[in-house]
Amino acid sequence: MAPINVALIGYAFMGRAHSNAYRQTSAFFSPRRPARMKVICGRTATEVERARQTLGWEEGATDWREVVRRKDIDLVDVCTPGDSHAEIAIAAARAGKHVFCEKPLANSLKDAERMLAAVEKAGVAHMICHNYRRAPAVMLARQLISEGAIGEIRHYRGTYLQDWMSDPAAPFNWRLDRNKAGSGALGDIASHSIDLARFLVGEITEVSADLTTFVKTRPVAGKPRTRADVTVDDAAMALVHFANGATGTIEATRMANGRKNYNRFEINGRLGSVVFNLERMNELEVYFDNDPPHLRGFRTIMVTEQSHPFIGHWWPPGHVIGYEHTFVHTVYDLLEAIADGKTPSPNFSDGVENQRILTAMERAAKSRRWEVVR
Amino acid sequence: MAPINVALIGYAFMGRAHSNAYRQTSAFFSPRRPARMKVICGRTATEVERARQTLGWEEGATDWREVVRRKDIDLVDVCTPGDSHAEIAIAAARAGKHVFCEKPLANSLKDAERMLAAVEKAGVAHMICHNYRRAPAVMLARQLISEGAIGEIRHYRGTYLQDWMSDPAAPFNWRLDRNKAGSGALGDIASHSIDLARFLVGEITEVSADLTTFVKTRPVAGKPRTRADVTVDDAAMALVHFANGATGTIEATRMANGRKNYNRFEINGRLGSVVFNLERMNELEVYFDNDPPHLRGFRTIMVTEQSHPFIGHWWPPGHVIGYEHTFVHTVYDLLEAIADGKTPSPNFSDGVENQRILTAMERAAKSRRWEVVR
Amino acid sequence: MAPINVALIGYAFMGRAHSNAYRQTSAFFSPRRPARMKVICGRTATEVERARQTLGWEEGATDWREVVRRKDIDLVDVCTPGDSHAEIAIAAARAGKHVFCEKPLANSLKDAERMLAAVEKAGVAHMICHNYRRAPAVMLARQLISEGAIGEIRHYRGTYLQDWMSDPAAPFNWRLDRNKAGSGALGDIASHSIDLARFLVGEITEVSADLTTFVKTRPVAGKPRTRADVTVDDAAMALVHFANGATGTIEATRMANGRKNYNRFEINGRLGSVVFNLERMNELEVYFDNDPPHLRGFRTIMVTEQSHPFIGHWWPPGHVIGYEHTFVHTVYDLLEAIADGKTPSPNFSDGVENQRILTAMERAAKSRRWEVVR
Amino acid sequence: MAPINVALIGYAFMGRAHSNAYRQTSAFFSPRRPARMKVICGRTATEVERARQTLGWEEGATDWREVVRRKDIDLVDVCTPGDSHAEIAIAAARAGKHVFCEKPLANSLKDAERMLAAVEKAGVAHMICHNYRRAPAVMLARQLISEGAIGEIRHYRGTYLQDWMSDPAAPFNWRLDRNKAGSGALGDIASHSIDLARFLVGEITEVSADLTTFVKTRPVAGKPRTRADVTVDDAAMALVHFANGATGTIEATRMANGRKNYNRFEINGRLGSVVFNLERMNELEVYFDNDPPHLRGFRTIMVTEQSHPFIGHWWPPGHVIGYEHTFVHTVYDLLEAIADGKTPSPNFSDGVENQRILTAMERAAKSRRWEVVR
Repeated sequence: MAPINVALIGYAFMGRAHSNAYRQTSAFFSPRRPARMKVICGRTATEVERARQTLGWEEGATDWREVVRRKDIDLVDVCTPGDSHAEIAIAAARAGKHVFCEKPLANSLKDAERMLAAVEKAGVAHMICHNYRRAPAVMLARQLISEGAIGEIRHYRGTYLQDWMSDPAAPFNWRLDRNKAGSGALGDIASHSIDLARFLVGEITEVSADLTTFVKTRPVAGKPRTRADVTVDDAAMALVHFANGATGTIEATRMANGRKNYNRFEINGRLGSVVFNLERMNELEVYFDNDPPHLRGFRTIMVTEQSHPFIGHWWPPGHVIGYEHTFVHTVYDLLEAIADGKTPSPNFSDGVENQRILTAMERAAKSRRWEVVR
Repeated sequence: MAPINVALIGYAFMGRAHSNAYRQTSAFFSPRRPARMKVICGRTATEVERARQTLGWEEGATDWREVVRRKDIDLVDVCTPGDSHAEIAIAAARAGKHVFCEKPLANSLKDAERMLAAVEKAGVAHMICHNYRRAPAVMLARQLISEGAIGEIRHYRGTYLQDWMSDPAAPFNWRLDRNKAGSGALGDIASHSIDLARFLVGEITEVSADLTTFVKTRPVAGKPRTRADVTVDDAAMALVHFANGATGTIEATRMANGRKNYNRFEINGRLGSVVFNLERMNELEVYFDNDPPHLRGFRTIMVTEQSHPFIGHWWPPGHVIGYEHTFVHTVYDLLEAIADGKTPSPNFSDGVENQRILTAMERAAKSRRWEVVR
Repeated sequence: MAPINVALIGYAFMGRAHSNAYRQTSAFFSPRRPARMKVICGRTATEVERARQTLGWEEGATDWREVVRRKDIDLVDVCTPGDSHAEIAIAAARAGKHVFCEKPLANSLKDAERMLAAVEKAGVAHMICHNYRRAPAVMLARQLISEGAIGEIRHYRGTYLQDWMSDPAAPFNWRLDRNKAGSGALGDIASHSIDLARFLVGEITEVSADLTTFVKTRPVAGKPRTRADVTVDDAAMALVHFANGATGTIEATRMANGRKNYNRFEINGRLGSVVFNLERMNELEVYFDNDPPHLRGFRTIMVTEQSHPFIGHWWPPGHVIGYEHTFVHTVYDLLEAIADGKTPSPNFSDGVENQRILTAMERAAKSRRWEVVR
Repeated sequence: MAPINVALIGYAFMGRAHSNAYRQTSAFFSPRRPARMKVICGRTATEVERARQTLGWEEGATDWREVVRRKDIDLVDVCTPGDSHAEIAIAAARAGKHVFCEKPLANSLKDAERMLAAVEKAGVAHMICHNYRRAPAVMLARQLISEGAIGEIRHYRGTYLQDWMSDPAAPFNWRLDRNKAGSGALGDIASHSIDLARFLVGEITEVSADLTTFVKTRPVAGKPRTRADVTVDDAAMALVHFANGATGTIEATRMANGRKNYNRFEINGRLGSVVFNLERMNELEVYFDNDPPHLRGFRTIMVTEQSHPFIGHWWPPGHVIGYEHTFVHTVYDLLEAIADGKTPSPNFSDGVENQRILTAMERAAKSRRWEVVR
């Protein structure tokens, strides 16, 4: 079948991760319609050219409006900061392109809803890049829950802890600017924990939440006498209720010294528990209440067997994979969905629902009471 | 100096743990005024006599009112269910006895306050048995925080997880009866997590909370056709604010399959973090942001060195201690405080404050909004 | 039934551990013939008197020869350094006393054999204190192996690592004197690893071994200009063959910085594996090859359930026990064996076999070749 | 500078890993002379063509003799089974090509020495692919040891444990055939542990060793009635002495149920210890004896900081890398060495020394005595 021609908008951290994913799908996954890395687009021509060469794209471009209209483009991949997602994604959809978008879908619920409406109206494939769903250990957790192996869920305990903003001397950057980023730890990393909650447990119906900014102003790099206001949260924490009766806690912070990328969840069900930590992403801890009493214990499963999701494409047992592989898996499933004419998952509906929860948490943090997700 | 004559009221689980503590202080700690295990008291004469022999008390008794008035008693130790704490402790105080009381101090804030008033009026020593404060690893955490070694605290993350009520077929018992127990996981185990929060971080000022009873009725042991209503929470979760600006989450549940006595906290400060888990109580994990960047990592400290709190009285490095030792340490400090004419810590004031927080959490769970601790 | 009157010879580290064991068996295990702590014996009268009071013995004595002949003594417990084990134990046996002896049984194979002959001739009960056999997690490992749950054993991997001699400035002591101690890490701690190998895997038939003394002389405490020769090994390592075809490595050292009491073994069988580490002695890691492929992983079993060996006498699940409890279990089984007129296990035959292996390792370290255990 | 034209001989497991490394160096490391993936060579034309397309090579070929003589080839990468390494590498060297060769260098010491002589005579760059040296955590261990941070080394404890041959029903394959593979676990995986020992501790001077074949014959896939003789070891274990006075144990097995790719080492030095396990390859455990006594403990360092070796080319802190990345790092250093006209490390000298140790272990396993490495 014909390759899928891709245009990538943005070439920073996420741009590198997505570029790698397109390259690696071909080498390891043999998608029926492989990705053709057609054009990479950014604002600064010289930067774009450097990225083009390093990341392996055929062409560079600086005007995304032109790019998303090009006839030879099938898929537009949006890796820019959150404040431009809506405009680009909607333009791409209107041009009839499939759209793959980084999370959070937008900086406001309204924008997210407009994006969903646009892709649905256009009838294109759409996907949001919650890549952690496709860590093999997370897939295994999902499989166990779906099969009922850990029973009716009672508790979700999600923490996404980082420490890169712990030092008050760490300089200001766009992720601390509400206008650019929408929110802080909430949208940046709690959104991942929320997505995993929805993927693994179900819909969240109401929340109590709290947002804190520990460091109110920060130095501006290169301007010794200037300090900028931090207009987003450093840390977010919430209590949540799920539609199925489960309860949960969700916490995200950039101030947890020693935690680098500690995206951890623990789920307790009537018949067992599962625990995942992204820092040890090749492992899943699983407890089964049905094991004989004297032999019950959390199993540390190396999720690197051929029988585990995606692993058959990589290496033999015990040969671990890394962070970037979650993007490869995500892109592979996206390419296959496009080849099949199906809508991949998670898609813009998930992005909207995620945004709805983020918004409810912001409301709750202000109202000081539980808020319904709506 | 003269021994301290003890009367123990109650001989169940806590009675065994306290009896052991009195015995072991003499053998390992040489308190200046050793405990003399004078009389153990319970309702059923035959049971009391059996306990007396096994646990090593000089006499047995069945009327606690008589016991607490005996001239030859110096210290009354209250190990009964929570609904009788107030009556016994107040009577003991009025009779001029020092009082050592199991947690939670009472089943209501009002009772707790009456107890505090009584001991203060009587001028006797009083202590509440939050024994986990005296796990050496917890003491080390406290020491590090006091010294400023982990800096200004930002986050407390306390979870006390057990699983003994996970199975809906597990029979009803007094801990599920609001009249006897006051509350469920909240008072039974969240109270420990709250005490550690206060000990390590500081006073809690406001809370948002949620209480859930997953299994509403349970079978009654020995009565095949009867089911009893569960009138307490199976699980409690809360967001909290501390007076010093720190934020926290506190969660307790009896439904977390695989977690047996998982009383864990993680504290993130500006300069580092500490992590403790009672299931591995001889260890403390500590992270220092001041370590050289390429050498930063959580240290797993075996808190079994002679330089660690209490350990010099036990065994050489790496020779671990267990659950019961926390009671020995607590009793030792109680005996020493009495010998010194000082009030030990934590005492009934701490019990009252703990109750105040539990009460605020119950209020918040009902009002669906943040509640001030008062 | 009548109590068993005990005489303890020695009051240092092991004397404290054994005294505690006698006390605690009564409180927690209700042996049919409880231990009566009759007399403690040592060389220095004032030290003995202090130990007597602290450790709870009825009488003190300074002449062990008199003590072991006393009519009112049933059991002699030998806790002295290894060079006096044989003389005391043999005298006790000849006086018709049951004998409980610390490990290693003697400083030479010949002495060990004489001791065994003496107790067998006298027809008394005899036991060697390899207390780690009775860590509940080790008992569980034994049970699984006995049931065939991990299949035919292929590998034993035993390491007993400590670090208290790592610093060359650490002063000389009797454990570094061949005349007193017999050997160094070999007899002191490798002997434990060998005992666990025999307990869990089976008899060892041949060995290749190596002994190293990294620090040849050490300062003498209190004598600034004097250095003493270290005449024992700091570290021992061996390859071993078992009679049943399994192979193994055994290593013991006092120079492994960071390892405090790291008595670890890993056993790989045809159907699974078990792993134990004394520093986390409440846990056993178990792997079953018969688990479904996608769910295989090492289970970390908290060996604190009522269904686990000895635990029913202590605390609820997850309430961990410590080092000293292994002695309580050992003494309890000794008391019960005496009450039943049976020989406990491990006994002096095990002590002799252990010594045979230690001796073969010393031979192999000299001959630079494999040596048969004989 | 001009790219380095590569010919890859072999396209199985290692061929995939090496191909990936060439691709990824360009995208993430920007070598001054990037690899140009010119030709891939194997015996079966159709297989080669499939590999060529998937793995991204410009041409396919079936005659390695022609390939290694091609003028447009700069570097020959040998990924075939061990019995053909010598012939190919020597031919390539004679043709003036740089040579990169999989481990073990050859199936015999003699062949290895011939290979070394050939590359030295030809004056070409040569490297052996002991890729685990370039796990960032291993590099960090090396750095700490080089700086003296853990002091004079006393112990190396290397185990490489796998379990893929544990089941006697697992079918025969070429790795079990002495003629093809040279040896079993010894050459396949103990060789890695030996290389790490040499990299981190120093030269090995003498060994005692043992080789075991637990399963003597195995079924042949596709031939129900045929069984083939296993002519190599399932497991190897050794005691070793280092030139600098350190001692060590090295063990490799394919029969350790539950261990998938457990390439672990622990090194104890006078001032500290380091521990690495390939299954958690993003972490290094480090213990410093110089930490204050009450704060000593093994640090679990996430070796994912920008300050750690190679990590700056990948992702932010805590975003882990995987098995394949060790090849990328190795290839990058090879490309840079070629660009600089320097000999990379480890090279064929290391391969020869490794073979010398493997050979000494085989001799020792037969002679039943310690053997000098020569």
